[in-house]
Amino acid sequence: MSPLVLSLGDPAGVGPELVAEAWARREAESLPPFVVAGGAGVLRAAARSRGIDLPVAAISDIREAAAFWHRALPVLGDADGEWTPGAPCREGAALALASLEAATRLAVTHDAAAIVTAPIAKARLAEVGFDHPGQTEYVAAACGIAAQDAVMMLAGPRLRAMPLTVHVALADVPRLLTTELIVRRARIAAAALERDFGLSQPRLALAGLNPHAGEDGRFGSEEAQTIAPAVAILRDEGIDATGPHPADAMFTPRARARYDAALCMYHDQALIPLKALDFDEGVNVTLGLPVVRTSPDHGTAFDIAGQNLADPGATITAIRMAGECAARRARHRL
Amino acid sequence: MSPLVLSLGDPAGVGPELVAEAWARREAESLPPFVVAGGAGVLRAAARSRGIDLPVAAISDIREAAAFWHRALPVLGDADGEWTPGAPCREGAALALASLEAATRLAVTHDAAAIVTAPIAKARLAEVGFDHPGQTEYVAAACGIAAQDAVMMLAGPRLRAMPLTVHVALADVPRLLTTELIVRRARIAAAALERDFGLSQPRLALAGLNPHAGEDGRFGSEEAQTIAPAVAILRDEGIDATGPHPADAMFTPRARARYDAALCMYHDQALIPLKALDFDEGVNVTLGLPVVRTSPDHGTAFDIAGQNLADPGATITAIRMAGECAARRARHRL
Repeated sequence: MSPLVLSLGDPAGVGPELVAEAWARREAESLPPFVVAGGAGVLRAAARSRGIDLPVAAISDIREAAAFWHRALPVLGDADGEWTPGAPCREGAALALASLEAATRLAVTHDAAAIVTAPIAKARLAEVGFDHPGQTEYVAAACGIAAQDAVMMLAGPRLRAMPLTVHVALADVPRLLTTELIVRRARIAAAALERDFGLSQPRLALAGLNPHAGEDGRFGSEEAQTIAPAVAILRDEGIDATGPHPADAMFTPRARARYDAALCMYHDQALIPLKALDFDEGVNVTLGLPVVRTSPDHGTAFDIAGQNLADPGATITAIRMAGECAARRARHRL
Repeated sequence: MSPLVLSLGDPAGVGPELVAEAWARREAESLPPFVVAGGAGVLRAAARSRGIDLPVAAISDIREAAAFWHRALPVLGDADGEWTPGAPCREGAALALASLEAATRLAVTHDAAAIVTAPIAKARLAEVGFDHPGQTEYVAAACGIAAQDAVMMLAGPRLRAMPLTVHVALADVPRLLTTELIVRRARIAAAALERDFGLSQPRLALAGLNPHAGEDGRFGSEEAQTIAPAVAILRDEGIDATGPHPADAMFTPRARARYDAALCMYHDQALIPLKALDFDEGVNVTLGLPVVRTSPDHGTAFDIAGQNLADPGATITAIRMAGECAARRARHRL
C-alpha cells in the first residue's frame, strides 16, 4: 500500500504539533507510513514545543517516503513558513491551503493511499481564495463528487454517527429533510460501511426528528411522512435500516449495541452524543468518495497551540482509520 | 423531617418492583424514610419477582411511618389491585392515578417532605380521566403553579440539563423560544439550584440553537436575537449565565466542569447527552414548585416488568435527591 498523505493544517493551530506527535508515536501506535505535504520548518518548530526533536526528510516524490519513514518524517515539497502558534496570519493560511491542495492531488491520483486533513480555520482560508464551505466539500469537488453525495461520518470508539443535514439553521432542517435525501445518504453510508469498514451487513439506526420520535404524531409529522418511508425503501433494498427511533434513547450503551451507525437528522443530534462520549478520539470520515479521507474531529484550537496541551488521540485515530479503510479498499480491488 | 411519599406508578410497569427494591436497599443506600401511597398487594407481589420478601405496614396516617420504617415498607391507604406485569389495564391505570393523587396531596400539604413519582403511561392514565400532559404538569397544577413555571431538570452524576422547550415539534422550537421564556426559566433554575441543591452562585451555561451556535449568524439568527439578549439580562441580575455555547461542544468532560447546569433550547439537546452519559442514574426534578418533586428518568418499561431486569439506580437516586433537597429547604426555613 502507498503511504498516506497528511495536510499540515493551519500552522498557527494544533495541526503541525499533532502530526509531529503522531510520527513520534508511529511505532507505539502501529501507524501506517505517511508523508506531510509541505511545512518542514513549521513541523520541526512545532515538534520542539512538545519536546520532540523531529528529523525531517525532504522528498520530492511520494515513492521516496518508504526509505525514510522509520527514521524521519517524510515531507513532500518546499512550501513552508513561520511557526506562529496561536497567531493565525495570511501567510499561514496560504501555506495551509497549498498543503491541502497538494495533499488532495496526491490522493485523487491514488499516489497516496488516503488523505488525512489537519484542522484549518475556514474564515482564514477564505481570505486567501478558498471558496468551499469546508475541507470535506473541497476534497469532494476535487474528486468530481457533488457535495450532497459526500457524507460526513463522525466515528469514535463508542459511536458512529452521520448528520444527514449539516451546516444549516435548525429552523431549516424540517424543510430540507426529504425521503429522497435520507435514502440517498443512507445508501452511501451502507456501501461505505461495507467497503471501507468491513461490515458485511451494516445496521443503520435512523433517528426521529421530534421528541420521542413525535410520539405517534403528537409533536410533528416528519417521522410518519418523511423518515419512516425512507426506512421502508431502504429495507426493501436489503439494507438493514431501523427507525425512526426516539433520539434521546438511541445513545445509551444498550441502544448503541444494536446498530453500527446512527443516521441523524441534524448536526447536533449526531455531534452532541459523539463529543459527549468520544471527545478526544472523534474522527471525521468522508463517505462516498473515490478516495479515503479522514480528519480529527476538532478545530485549530489556536488558544492552546504550541503549549503541549493538545491531545493527539483524534489525529492518531484518524491516521490509523484511514490506513485501515485504504487497506480494505485495496483488498476489495484484488 | 417528615417522610417522603412515593407514588406507585403503573402496576404493570417497573415502578412497584423498583420501589420495593429501594426499600430493601434503604440501609445500604442510606435512603431517607418514605411511604408509598397505596398498592400494598402490588408491591408485595412485585417484590417477590425480585426475590424480596417484602414486609408491608399498612398505615392510615403518614406520621405512623417512622415507627415501621426500619422493619417494613409503610403503605398509606387501602387502594390496591392486581399485579399484572407487562399487561397494562384500565384498573391498573386507575390505581396509578389514585396513588399519584394521594401522594400529591400529602406533598402539597407538606405532610410529606417531598414526592417521588414512579413511572406511569400517559395514554393509559388519560383513559381513566387524567387530563394533564404528564405528572410534572399535574403536580404543578396541584401546587397552583402555571405549567410554564415548572421547569424540568434532568440530573445525573455527570450532568444537569434543562430543556427550555419540551414536548413540541422541532419545527416549532424556533418560534416558541423567546428571550422572555429563557429568562423566566433561567431565573427559576438559578433560584432552585441555590435553594434545593446548595449551590451558592450556580453557573448556568446556555446552549445555542443552531450548529456551532450559528457561527456568527451564518446558520440562523436566534443566538444573536433571542439567546444572547437573555444571557445579558440574566447577567445584569447577577446570575452567572454564559453562552450561547455551541451545543456539541458543551457536553465534553472539560466543558461540563465549567458549569452547574446546561440550559438547552429543546428536548433532545438536553436529553441526548443526559441519557448518553447517565442513562441508568438520570433523575427528573421539577424546579420552581413549593414542593420537592423528583422522578426516575425512565418510563414504565412494560417489556421488562416483573423479570428482575429493571435497574433501580434512577429510583434510588431520585429518592436520595428528593431527601437532600427537602432537607436543604427545611434548613432554609429555620
